[in-house]
Amino acid sequence: MMPGAAAEGRPTPPSTPEGAVPTVAWKSGDASGIPGAVELLDQTRLPETQVALRCGDVAPLIDAIRRLVVRGAPAIGVAGAYGVVLAAQEAKSPAAFRELCRKLREARPTAVNLAWAVDRTSAADPEGRDPRRLLAAARRIHAEDEAACAAMGRHGATLLREGGTYLTHCNTGRLAATGIGTALGVLVTAHAWGLRPKVYVGEVRPLLQGARLTAFELQERGMDGVLMPDTAAGALLASGRIDGVLVGADRIAANGDTANKIGTYALAELARANGVPFWVVAPTSTIDPSIADGTSIPIEERAPEEVRGWRKEATSPAGFPVWNPAFDVTPARLVSALVTERGVLRPPFELRRTLSNR
Amino acid sequence: MMPGAAAEGRPTPPSTPEGAVPTVAWKSGDASGIPGAVELLDQTRLPETQVALRCGDVAPLIDAIRRLVVRGAPAIGVAGAYGVVLAAQEAKSPAAFRELCRKLREARPTAVNLAWAVDRTSAADPEGRDPRRLLAAARRIHAEDEAACAAMGRHGATLLREGGTYLTHCNTGRLAATGIGTALGVLVTAHAWGLRPKVYVGEVRPLLQGARLTAFELQERGMDGVLMPDTAAGALLASGRIDGVLVGADRIAANGDTANKIGTYALAELARANGVPFWVVAPTSTIDPSIADGTSIPIEERAPEEVRGWRKEATSPAGFPVWNPAFDVTPARLVSALVTERGVLRPPFELRRTLSNR
Repeated sequence: MMPGAAAEGRPTPPSTPEGAVPTVAWKSGDASGIPGAVELLDQTRLPETQVALRCGDVAPLIDAIRRLVVRGAPAIGVAGAYGVVLAAQEAKSPAAFRELCRKLREARPTAVNLAWAVDRTSAADPEGRDPRRLLAAARRIHAEDEAACAAMGRHGATLLREGGTYLTHCNTGRLAATGIGTALGVLVTAHAWGLRPKVYVGEVRPLLQGARLTAFELQERGMDGVLMPDTAAGALLASGRIDGVLVGADRIAANGDTANKIGTYALAELARANGVPFWVVAPTSTIDPSIADGTSIPIEERAPEEVRGWRKEATSPAGFPVWNPAFDVTPARLVSALVTERGVLRPPFELRRTLSNR
Repeated sequence: MMPGAAAEGRPTPPSTPEGAVPTVAWKSGDASGIPGAVELLDQTRLPETQVALRCGDVAPLIDAIRRLVVRGAPAIGVAGAYGVVLAAQEAKSPAAFRELCRKLREARPTAVNLAWAVDRTSAADPEGRDPRRLLAAARRIHAEDEAACAAMGRHGATLLREGGTYLTHCNTGRLAATGIGTALGVLVTAHAWGLRPKVYVGEVRPLLQGARLTAFELQERGMDGVLMPDTAAGALLASGRIDGVLVGADRIAANGDTANKIGTYALAELARANGVPFWVVAPTSTIDPSIADGTSIPIEERAPEEVRGWRKEATSPAGFPVWNPAFDVTPARLVSALVTERGVLRPPFELRRTLSNR
């Protein structure tokens, strides 16, 4: 892998901008951290209102994870890790602790990071007798996520030019992680380095993560951002104004085929047709070496109601059939580079070998 | 041009489905048609409510055109033609008639059909003394639009296979015309022929003409339709399920480069990448022989408010910069065929020669 040589001595941006509400935080009145509570930036109320939701017990935290108060696999993982500390504070017996942890890890069964983080944290004290020990384990997971984001940001920012214009997709910033994020974290890093990136983002129907969350992050960091309808991406990429496309990933097959938020594949194809580089930014934990290529990645289809309207207002005829896939697969041949916390990988991708070179 | 041989003896679908409110109609209690009023299907209330708005004078008709109660260039043209009859009924002098016609033709300055239809109708009786004569002229324009749509439908439907699955964009059906429309009219014709086309359509942010209008038309005709987020178009075209993409056009350059609703170019590029035919359906009046290629077609940018939210609800941070182009240009090299009322044209397109062969 290429070392991020140009990154040496350059500043690392803060995970949370000055004065903003962190995505996930552990709060306590005691210096030891115990007793304490999890505070989540309530993303269901963005971009209108920035307010923290305090969860002092496991039940409200599970509810918050289910309602997408916190979303993004790494952020959910860290919230779950702190949830294990809540479980230890609350449980009156080892059996009760284990039961709370079981419920917590199932709050969103598809988010693999949640189960992983709950299991790893609770392994530090399997009977839940010492919340301080569990808090230390949760904080390690939190710190590792921040460090991985910072490293991806440094490696990725070396690909960008001063004053360049970039397109990103969905939300892959601090609201999806506890660090600065993946693809958006690269742009945030470039901003901290004084490269003045201009960032276009589509709305990303149906859930509008681009309009609601990425635009919010660009605004709170004082970055130069432009929102457009998803339908405008083709015209933008054909305009010659875009220096690169940066996206995150939900799962990457051994050959580099990448599953990500619906709409990613179209951006990759349009970038290729117009000679624009297409970069995937994701930690190596996103690589699934058990999957040879993208044809084996299952694609979740979500509820038709997400497409039939916006919040409570219908925008289509009642009961009209809907196809609402949450992800699509971008073939590895369209990926110009894969940016991980360990450096920048170029095609052809042989990711099983990459992972074994730890 | 290829004659629509396979179309002979096949049924022509009605412009308005049985029992539905017509897009534009002239209504009168008198057999002569005079006095009468224009009735418009209020498209601002679709898909929730199907109700006609009656305009007995020119002022409410102008207001309705401005508020997009009626939209789509051919439909606006026919509404304007009937508006000239209203002007003659209402005006107390030739000067007053001319003034009402002037205001009418400027209700939407960018819709070239409106000025053309007002001028052509009023030329039948320039002083506005004989509403019956003007009504006959307006009815000729209305009948010509219906006939052109029916012919495009017949020519285009010969391209489709029985039981095929197609993707369309925006709204190009009876709500955009007074006949069955252009691209959607082809699919409606195929349905009337018993070919059972399955029709996918994106929502088409920001104004949701796909979700609000095309889904409504598919439902009212009892056709097999599926709505998806605009972001899903790439995955759909990569899936192998689509037999062809059908779109309309706002303006076509002499070389075949086509300006159409934003998002069209992306569908063309994605169709090409996946081996799917891409068909443009438009009357020859859409061809602008004065424009050599797409680089000279001006692209209208619309208000940021259309993208910042849905109706009165904000979906992005207040004041965030927006890019909202209304159209994009699809290069002729991506167009598999151009379907007009005179037949099916194949590339290379030499449209100046086509127009001179009337």
